[in-house]
Amino acid sequence: MYFGVDYYPEHWPEERWETDIKMMKELGINVVRIAEFGWSVIEPKEGQYNFSLYDKVIDLLHQYDIDVILGTPTATPPAWLIEKHPNILQINKQGQRNNFGGRRHYCFNNLNYQRYTHKIVTQMVEHYNDNEAVIGWQIDNEFGHEASDKCYCDDCQKEFQNWLKEKYSTLENLNQTWGTVFWSQSYNSWDQIPTPKETWTAHNPSLLLDFYRFSSDSIVDYQKMQVDIIREKVAEQWITHNLIFTGHTLNLDNLARDLDFVSFDNYPVWGGLAKPVNPETTAFNHDLMYGLKNQPFWIMEELIGAQGWDQIGYLPRPNQAKMWTYQALGHGAEAIIFFRWRACRFGTEQFCHGILDHDGKPKRKYKEIKEIKEELDLAGDDFTNSTRKAKVALYHSYDNMWAWQIQPQSSAFDYREEVEKIYRPFFNKNINVNVISQLSNLEQYEILVLPILFLVNSDWIKEIESFVTNGGKLVLTYRNGVKDENNIVTDKTLPGFFSELAGIEINEYESLQVNQQNSVVFENKEYDTRVWSDLITLTGAKSLAEYNQNFYAGTPAITENKYGQGEVYYIGCSPDDKLLSYLYERILIKTSLNAIETEKGVEIIKKTGEKNNYLIALNHNSQSYKINLSKTYKTIDGKQAKTELQLQPFDGIILKQDI
Amino acid sequence: MYFGVDYYPEHWPEERWETDIKMMKELGINVVRIAEFGWSVIEPKEGQYNFSLYDKVIDLLHQYDIDVILGTPTATPPAWLIEKHPNILQINKQGQRNNFGGRRHYCFNNLNYQRYTHKIVTQMVEHYNDNEAVIGWQIDNEFGHEASDKCYCDDCQKEFQNWLKEKYSTLENLNQTWGTVFWSQSYNSWDQIPTPKETWTAHNPSLLLDFYRFSSDSIVDYQKMQVDIIREKVAEQWITHNLIFTGHTLNLDNLARDLDFVSFDNYPVWGGLAKPVNPETTAFNHDLMYGLKNQPFWIMEELIGAQGWDQIGYLPRPNQAKMWTYQALGHGAEAIIFFRWRACRFGTEQFCHGILDHDGKPKRKYKEIKEIKEELDLAGDDFTNSTRKAKVALYHSYDNMWAWQIQPQSSAFDYREEVEKIYRPFFNKNINVNVISQLSNLEQYEILVLPILFLVNSDWIKEIESFVTNGGKLVLTYRNGVKDENNIVTDKTLPGFFSELAGIEINEYESLQVNQQNSVVFENKEYDTRVWSDLITLTGAKSLAEYNQNFYAGTPAITENKYGQGEVYYIGCSPDDKLLSYLYERILIKTSLNAIETEKGVEIIKKTGEKNNYLIALNHNSQSYKINLSKTYKTIDGKQAKTELQLQPFDGIILKQDI
Amino acid sequence: MYFGVDYYPEHWPEERWETDIKMMKELGINVVRIAEFGWSVIEPKEGQYNFSLYDKVIDLLHQYDIDVILGTPTATPPAWLIEKHPNILQINKQGQRNNFGGRRHYCFNNLNYQRYTHKIVTQMVEHYNDNEAVIGWQIDNEFGHEASDKCYCDDCQKEFQNWLKEKYSTLENLNQTWGTVFWSQSYNSWDQIPTPKETWTAHNPSLLLDFYRFSSDSIVDYQKMQVDIIREKVAEQWITHNLIFTGHTLNLDNLARDLDFVSFDNYPVWGGLAKPVNPETTAFNHDLMYGLKNQPFWIMEELIGAQGWDQIGYLPRPNQAKMWTYQALGHGAEAIIFFRWRACRFGTEQFCHGILDHDGKPKRKYKEIKEIKEELDLAGDDFTNSTRKAKVALYHSYDNMWAWQIQPQSSAFDYREEVEKIYRPFFNKNINVNVISQLSNLEQYEILVLPILFLVNSDWIKEIESFVTNGGKLVLTYRNGVKDENNIVTDKTLPGFFSELAGIEINEYESLQVNQQNSVVFENKEYDTRVWSDLITLTGAKSLAEYNQNFYAGTPAITENKYGQGEVYYIGCSPDDKLLSYLYERILIKTSLNAIETEKGVEIIKKTGEKNNYLIALNHNSQSYKINLSKTYKTIDGKQAKTELQLQPFDGIILKQDI
Ligand SMILES: [Zn+2]
Ligand SMILES: [Zn+2]
Ligand SMILES: [Zn+2]
Repeated sequence: MYFGVDYYPEHWPEERWETDIKMMKELGINVVRIAEFGWSVIEPKEGQYNFSLYDKVIDLLHQYDIDVILGTPTATPPAWLIEKHPNILQINKQGQRNNFGGRRHYCFNNLNYQRYTHKIVTQMVEHYNDNEAVIGWQIDNEFGHEASDKCYCDDCQKEFQNWLKEKYSTLENLNQTWGTVFWSQSYNSWDQIPTPKETWTAHNPSLLLDFYRFSSDSIVDYQKMQVDIIREKVAEQWITHNLIFTGHTLNLDNLARDLDFVSFDNYPVWGGLAKPVNPETTAFNHDLMYGLKNQPFWIMEELIGAQGWDQIGYLPRPNQAKMWTYQALGHGAEAIIFFRWRACRFGTEQFCHGILDHDGKPKRKYKEIKEIKEELDLAGDDFTNSTRKAKVALYHSYDNMWAWQIQPQSSAFDYREEVEKIYRPFFNKNINVNVISQLSNLEQYEILVLPILFLVNSDWIKEIESFVTNGGKLVLTYRNGVKDENNIVTDKTLPGFFSELAGIEINEYESLQVNQQNSVVFENKEYDTRVWSDLITLTGAKSLAEYNQNFYAGTPAITENKYGQGEVYYIGCSPDDKLLSYLYERILIKTSLNAIETEKGVEIIKKTGEKNNYLIALNHNSQSYKINLSKTYKTIDGKQAKTELQLQPFDGIILKQDI
Repeated sequence: MYFGVDYYPEHWPEERWETDIKMMKELGINVVRIAEFGWSVIEPKEGQYNFSLYDKVIDLLHQYDIDVILGTPTATPPAWLIEKHPNILQINKQGQRNNFGGRRHYCFNNLNYQRYTHKIVTQMVEHYNDNEAVIGWQIDNEFGHEASDKCYCDDCQKEFQNWLKEKYSTLENLNQTWGTVFWSQSYNSWDQIPTPKETWTAHNPSLLLDFYRFSSDSIVDYQKMQVDIIREKVAEQWITHNLIFTGHTLNLDNLARDLDFVSFDNYPVWGGLAKPVNPETTAFNHDLMYGLKNQPFWIMEELIGAQGWDQIGYLPRPNQAKMWTYQALGHGAEAIIFFRWRACRFGTEQFCHGILDHDGKPKRKYKEIKEIKEELDLAGDDFTNSTRKAKVALYHSYDNMWAWQIQPQSSAFDYREEVEKIYRPFFNKNINVNVISQLSNLEQYEILVLPILFLVNSDWIKEIESFVTNGGKLVLTYRNGVKDENNIVTDKTLPGFFSELAGIEINEYESLQVNQQNSVVFENKEYDTRVWSDLITLTGAKSLAEYNQNFYAGTPAITENKYGQGEVYYIGCSPDDKLLSYLYERILIKTSLNAIETEKGVEIIKKTGEKNNYLIALNHNSQSYKINLSKTYKTIDGKQAKTELQLQPFDGIILKQDI
Repeated sequence: MYFGVDYYPEHWPEERWETDIKMMKELGINVVRIAEFGWSVIEPKEGQYNFSLYDKVIDLLHQYDIDVILGTPTATPPAWLIEKHPNILQINKQGQRNNFGGRRHYCFNNLNYQRYTHKIVTQMVEHYNDNEAVIGWQIDNEFGHEASDKCYCDDCQKEFQNWLKEKYSTLENLNQTWGTVFWSQSYNSWDQIPTPKETWTAHNPSLLLDFYRFSSDSIVDYQKMQVDIIREKVAEQWITHNLIFTGHTLNLDNLARDLDFVSFDNYPVWGGLAKPVNPETTAFNHDLMYGLKNQPFWIMEELIGAQGWDQIGYLPRPNQAKMWTYQALGHGAEAIIFFRWRACRFGTEQFCHGILDHDGKPKRKYKEIKEIKEELDLAGDDFTNSTRKAKVALYHSYDNMWAWQIQPQSSAFDYREEVEKIYRPFFNKNINVNVISQLSNLEQYEILVLPILFLVNSDWIKEIESFVTNGGKLVLTYRNGVKDENNIVTDKTLPGFFSELAGIEINEYESLQVNQQNSVVFENKEYDTRVWSDLITLTGAKSLAEYNQNFYAGTPAITENKYGQGEVYYIGCSPDDKLLSYLYERILIKTSLNAIETEKGVEIIKKTGEKNNYLIALNHNSQSYKINLSKTYKTIDGKQAKTELQLQPFDGIILKQDI
């Protein structure tokens, strides 16, 4: 198993390198990622290439049997390049040009930048394509981060117009599709079509959605250019990118398409956060990464120390990094690389703490990394290669996410929060979920969840209907089926597309705002609801819960409909966790799935290897818990048998069982 | 009575039109407004005019005896025009040019835009001036909305300088009046005078006030240009504009001057609001609209469904639209047009719900509109033409509002809130108020209220003094009389202008901030006060209330002064509603006016027709109430006699009584 | 003693001047400051100088024996100059040019502005250098105020590059020092170095710190140019500047260097503040002003009435201005000038109230000024020239303040608040503190406090070590010694530089965010801590307090170390006031210092004159207090003996005692 660290030899004197590498070796590190911000090291002046620094480091690493991943350094165009071509810098929504001094300061559609990208990547790959130590490539760094996902420059406007020409062929078609007749926005020339720069009202939502798609495609195409250069020249070396997932205008499904596998930068806490995000947030991120290619992924940056630029925050607790590592492995990671070797003494990331702090001494975090590696060595490849099956599919679509970003419809609405709310009860019940990006091959699932799927494509209907007809359980939420793929509201009575399947009609609805709530009665108990109230008319379904407030008290809020061999659930509101949990239990009882009930924040993952079954127990809390295991497991060293388990604060434990 | 709907035939397939019009007819609709955003429909390319779409629709409407109001489409300059003359787009305070993609994206002083406006309006009026179905014109749409009221472009700067030349004749006069000697801001050339673009300190308040006046005049002149074109060519067709009132830099008194009557767009709730504004806010808006020309007005857009762009909010309750309709009619509207026929499937206003939703089916709102029309038919013209007299005048001045916007003086100050606070007790006591825009013909009133009248004009003094001398009751508040019309502080001891009338002097004052309060003792009881504390010295008046806190405890806060046959009340603080209510009772008892006490949110309006007296009872609350009527009234169908009335949630009821 | 007022004769008709001056005379005023915004009065058109207005006023003042301070009017470049050279206006971080209409609208590095400055200052000084009434000069007005401290224009960028060339000589040196290898930011030409305009990430912290230093130097150099012009031509007349201290990018130590003495503008309340700042804030400001040159300073603007531009706030209470005046004198002021004579009727500062209000009548504030002068006359020069010694030194560094502004590290961190927290217990115990700007001559102190001294210079170590070795008490806080003077993190284990002195190592730390806290146990009691937790390892020190929460419960938080004859205290957290107070008592007991315990907000200052000892008692609260004096004092008129003192709300009392 690859177990590594992100290393920046250019930040340290050459005399220190061997000390560092020996320490890495002592930790069991067998791979490092380097060079992903090293453009000015490699090409300090235009056309003067100098690989000597990285050559030396790679040689030294190779002597110690440590493999190398090379990052292409295109996230940081150097000062001389910006001086020569300042229009590489993006233009923001307010029409202001970005400035040199950070990173990701380039427009994906700038031809000059594409040309210089081509040159530096070609130089690097020609230099390293047959280097034995180099096992693969990371393209650029965290595409989309730091507001770099959208640019409003003239080049981008031109490219957007070309993209639209490609998509719509004629202006008649575009005007018709977008409904530009509204507010006299019809175009009689492609040149008139703007990028959605700031206006004192809102832009056409269909234009906005297409601009988001275009922006994402610009990134995907830019990555593809680099991928093509590298693929042409390498034999064994693979290609990846270190993805993040925070709501950018970047379709990760498309981005993943051109990669051998995806990598993920996992920061459960960052910047001035007082505590880590919820464990289900990290779990969902991992499941989403796995789902991008339905295959194991790498963690390219795994948090080990406190992180931040101008603001630092929460100090990860003793053992917490181990616990996060095991969570990643549990959810489908196959390699772990920690960020970073040692905290840098200068630059913006001075307070991004690594395995070592600024003083370079081995301390608590160093010892923890050593322990993690020793345990993983005990677990061996059978564990790393073990798999987990899911019978629940949750569909996630970038187009849909963007449509919600464009029109959140309620001040209480947060896309990520609402999707996680739907995912959370599965997490709490320790039931595996596949986050899927295609509505196909649904027959492998028993439950299909379509959370807040605002934007629907009529091509899906057959697949979904057949899933339900054949006995599948379909879970729908409020605002499913409102729009078509062009962000146009359906003229069918809601939930449009899903009306027949769900056996309901929605003739009125109300958006609830922050601090507003309603309630529903489910099985004679009252539960809070927020964000939205669909007022449901039953046309075949049965009501499971009714509103308890406002003029629509008594109106169905959650329904169940038998359809073919299956059932369709419609949740017309955003209920609290308890209600969702009870509702899911009602659904699960009709499936083969078994919940494992644990304390909140205690996560159990079961995986299957060739030799053993594995149980990963994670404690995301600062209290201790004792948990009972349904069967007898052995400790990872095989020395003890366990039927119950004591979880210390932030503990992560791997147990096994012969098959 | 005109009862109509805003209709956008260009948003729907031609095949649907007749279905729509038949449904309108079924509802009793007899007028529709169209075309106000239809520039690109009429002139899809420069100079190519095509009226066929609207011709067909108007013909069809005419076949069904439905009259038509035509909007000039100048709120939405089309893409081809902006492409040709991008400097039509305004410049904001930060110096950034607006962008195409919304609406109201034009500078009123741009000569190109004025030229194109001239052409499109001329074309339209020549085409439709003798169309039998067309009864009138709406100029543009909601002037001032969406930050379009102020532009800082070079053209506007030039025009502002010309406007100042016109006003001040010489630079000496301007420098002297504004006090430009302060901070070395004296101008020795007209070209030096800036528009008040963003600086790191505050601009000269006199320059600011003149810039606000200039900005308003720019809109008034722009409207006038359109009015003149139309008037020259039409015979019977009238001209209006659909006003809004939300604190823009637009003097509605001046804007109304050139119109046959004013129209109002009434949205008690909009865009992510969790609940409607207070009923007195809507009432005040209506009274203000009536006061603009002292004549009935139209509602050009009356809310019927939930509204919003990116965010939707409160769903209007069953019957609430009827209640709002009756409130408008009670306060002086003579025609109601609902916004809009059907929710649009595309564009920015996708979630502005109409009588019909996106699915086009007649549902709850459709039925409600039908019921409203049937009741209004029973009420008949005698009701529509009935009038209400007011003995209370409340003066509202745009110059004064702008002066407060420029210098709010307290973080707790909100102009609209403070004016409404002074208006509210009359509303709560169901006493009619005329919101007046001229301090003349005061002899018809018993009470004159000058709320927070910071900015005074010495021409008024004679009129006001004579009002009081002849027995009128004058109500003044804190900060009355501080400044002259040029935003210069008086050198008289405060309240300056009003000192003698009020029989007081103010030698100190304190601005209270958000979360700060004081209290006063009035008739031995303590009441909260906020925003401001005038420390009053009596010079003839008698103290009605004294402060109860701070070093100025015991100092008079509210006073009463006999002057001639009348009385002058000075309220040196912003007291809570209760105290104001008791104070008003003290004043009312000296007049012929009778309060009708009702539960908060229950509104009673009395009107007088030729044949009947009318009582309109409105319940703005979600609870039911029983109210006793002082006399016997008949239901509007004449079938039942009532001495008490059961008001359901959001009920609106019209009763009548023979004269 | 100089006792004066800021006067703007240009704001009032000439006929009023003598009335004003007679009233000033009646108050005992003997100095006025004029002309500091009078450029357009003196030079209404380019090259046309006209001193007649100020000549007349100065003559009149001289007739009444009132001396004059002249301000150079460069804070307000006039309209004709900006029209001619619009690039005098600064460029902000977002790249937008400032606009005419406020004040301080000029770039310090603009050559045109420097040329015009040279001309106007030369003209003024040549005109007034031998005027008998004129005793001194104030350069410009409140340098750094209103975001004028940083400019990002092209001229500034060029000058910044020159400044860096001067500092670093070679690009290699700069690249090496800043660590530009991070994120490929290495420069191979000086022209590439940007000013830190807005980017979507954070700039290099070393570049930022140098830009802050450069910006400060730009102001210091600009002042120096004016100082040089004046010095060359005057004999007796002195030169000062009216400083403010609110976190600007301006090193007041450097600014003070070129002045004869510093002046301070003292506004304990301003704008929309609901109440004055804490008394220790004002005290600290005064101590800091004194420390700039270790000599008495002037108050050039002392608040007398309510102040504000668009928003007014708290009305200073009766006698409060007197109390603030005595506080200033107690902390080292030697002259007091009140702001301003009379509230202006026009311009941005309409609501800055003076001794007189807009109506020009003598009222409460007028009488208070008279009383202050009468008491100060009784106290006489022996009081004004009296001094106070301090045995506590608190080091304050602008470089350090800027480093914290660049990287606050916690959302709960506020530089000023944290420094004041460390200062406050001394204030509460009425112990004099010298705020020092150089770490030299430490032998005169018993306690040296280095609050949050993030940025350290290795040159200091010898001085500090010798201070402790010789018996001094050194107080250090969290984050001391983290960085070097180039904003680079030390590679020593923390607290780096101070590790041996403090006898500790810090191997982990945690940043706490707003609303987060920890607690420590000190002498068996628990106290709250905020902002930061250093996890201390003892290497010789003894623990005084340990954390009580989180995984680091039990870890030392505050330590004491014997070193040589002295002791070193390290406070690894931001504790609450009580704990700090107890800790200080523990330290004080080992010194010769005696606390005077008073109620919170009651301040006692002791000063020593040639003839008398003085005790100044100040009550910053709105309640009354009785305080016992340790010895018998006489009232300032010598008529009564006092062993206890009744302090009325906001009272300020001077007592004396023969030496
Ligand atoms: Zn671009
Ligand atoms: Zn303009
Ligand atoms: Zn500059």
